[in-house]
Parts: sequence; C-alpha cells; structure tokens
Amino acid sequence: MPRPKLKSSEEMLQMLSRVDIHSSVAVYLQIENHVQIAISSGRLSPTDRLPSVRELSERLEVNANTVAKAYRDLEIMGLLYTRRGKGVFVRDGIQEKCRKDCLGRIVNRMHGVVVEARAAGMSPKVINEIVSKCSSSKSSPYLPAPSSLLKLATKSTRK
Amino acid sequence: MPRPKLKSSEEMLQMLSRVDIHSSVAVYLQIENHVQIAISSGRLSPTDRLPSVRELSERLEVNANTVAKAYRDLEIMGLLYTRRGKGVFVRDGIQEKCRKDCLGRIVNRMHGVVVEARAAGMSPKVINEIVSKCSSSKSSPYLPAPSSLLKLATKSTRK
Repeated sequence: MPRPKLKSSEEMLQMLSRVDIHSSVAVYLQIENHVQIAISSGRLSPTDRLPSVRELSERLEVNANTVAKAYRDLEIMGLLYTRRGKGVFVRDGIQEKCRKDCLGRIVNRMHGVVVEARAAGMSPKVINEIVSKCSSSKSSPYLPAPSSLLKLATKSTRK
Repeated sequence: MPRPKLKSSEEMLQMLSRVDIHSSVAVYLQIENHVQIAISSGRLSPTDRLPSVRELSERLEVNANTVAKAYRDLEIMGLLYTRRGKGVFVRDGIQEKCRKDCLGRIVNRMHGVVVEARAAGMSPKVINEIVSKCSSSKSSPYLPAPSSLLKLATKSTRK
C-alpha cells in the first residue's frame, strides 16, 4: 500500500473542527471521538501530525485546556504520542484495534437505542425510515436530530 | 376510552424486572428508563400502583436504596407520586409529555449514532441491515450487542 500523503495543517484543522459548543456532549469528548473515528476510518494515518493545542483551540474557539485534555486522554488510550518539540502524532499500528473499538461502541449503542425504540412502541418500519434519513444527515452527531424525525416517531406511535 | 384494568402486583414486577446488573448502565437508571418507556407506551397507566421498594429490590436482587433512588428521581421528574401509607403511583395526565420526551431522547440518540456510523465508514445499507436485526432482538438494551452484528460492521468497512 502506498504511504498516504502527509496532510496539510489546514486539512487537519478542518477534519477536527466539527465541534458543537451547544451540544450536551462535552467538547473534549467530541474531539476524542473525532480523532478516534478519523483514525478508524483511515482519514488520519500513522505519522500524521495533529494540529498543536494552540492552533486547534483557536480554531474551535475553546479553552486550550479542553484540547489538551482530549490529546492527553488519547495518549493514555495509546492512539497518539508526543515527540518533544515536534508535536503530537498518530501512533503506528493501532488502526485495526481503534477501528474495532469504535465500531463495537457504535454497534452497541445502535443495538441499545433500537431495542428501546421498539419497547417505546416504534415499529421496525418507522425505525428504518428514521435511520435512513439519519444516514444522509449532514448535521453534527452532537446536536438534536431534525424535528421532522421526532414528528415521524410521535405520529407513528400515537394511540 | 375505557379505564384500563388495574394490573396485579406480579404483572408490575415482571414489567420492571428486566434489569441487567452486568451492564455498564447504572441499575437505577435502567429502572427509571423502564418506567418512562412503560408510561410512554401505555403499558403503565395513570393510577397504576408500582411495586413497593422492598418488593422490587427483592425481585431484582439489588439494594433497596437503588430502587428508592429511581422512584425518587421519577417523582422529581413528575411521573410518580407517593400516597403516604398507600404506595407509589403513576401521575395522571403525564403520558403525552413522557412519550414525547422519551421518543425525543431516542430519536436524538439514533441520529447521533447513525451519523457517527457513517463517519466511521459504515454504508447506509449495512447500517440498515444491523438496525433491522436489532429491531427483532430479544436482548436487553443494556447489554452488548450480539457479536454477529459487530462482525457485520467490521467486515463491511474493511479496507
């Protein structure tokens, strides 16, 4: 497999900047999630250098400590490492494990929410319809779903 | 609409006893969730009396404080109320709001997890396949998904 081209610092910033400060999910968790999903999908590759804490916190308009906490957590998880004076990099050889962990968490959450939806009276047909619409959603995963989806759910379960 | 028949205490216990002590979700939250979903789907009706803290904690084999915390939280949310010396009852007139809140939370979680799944490289087709299998799952929403689902997800996104 050819070594992927090194990404520019602007590409990196764009990849990590979809953070919603209005979400109920803490910003550092959103950053951690972004990095994990980017590694597991191959958009972030081994040897890629992440934006510096200062660059990313300025772009996101959040406190530098928030970004520092996300990077530190990701280092503890073994996904990133720091080269003193050089920056923060993606660790080599962790993509497969990261991908499995990521997909495992996603599938577990998917299972949990669908089983609850069934218990709350939603039919498999309506669940599929909502999921299909979500599949083409351009919105952030950290913001409330479009209200049209909630209408679909409440209408379909009305007694 | 005819008044629904009062449920026996055994029926009540069965409805609330699907709790998993091996889950990473705290047991009191599982109980709260069960009650909310049962109210919102109409399986628990206004005037229904819930099992006593002692009865339910003995059935679930959990500490009585765990059940007491769930009941107290649900009272604070306005879904249950205590009649001194008579027991804990479902409040009248809250079903519609409870249903809307419940479905809203479910739809938001569904949206979040599907958007993340797409970002992690899962195709809409595979997501639909997994969701359909979850729709007929008999397992608890608080336990990991069957491993066959994870295999489906990892195989389909393999590079």
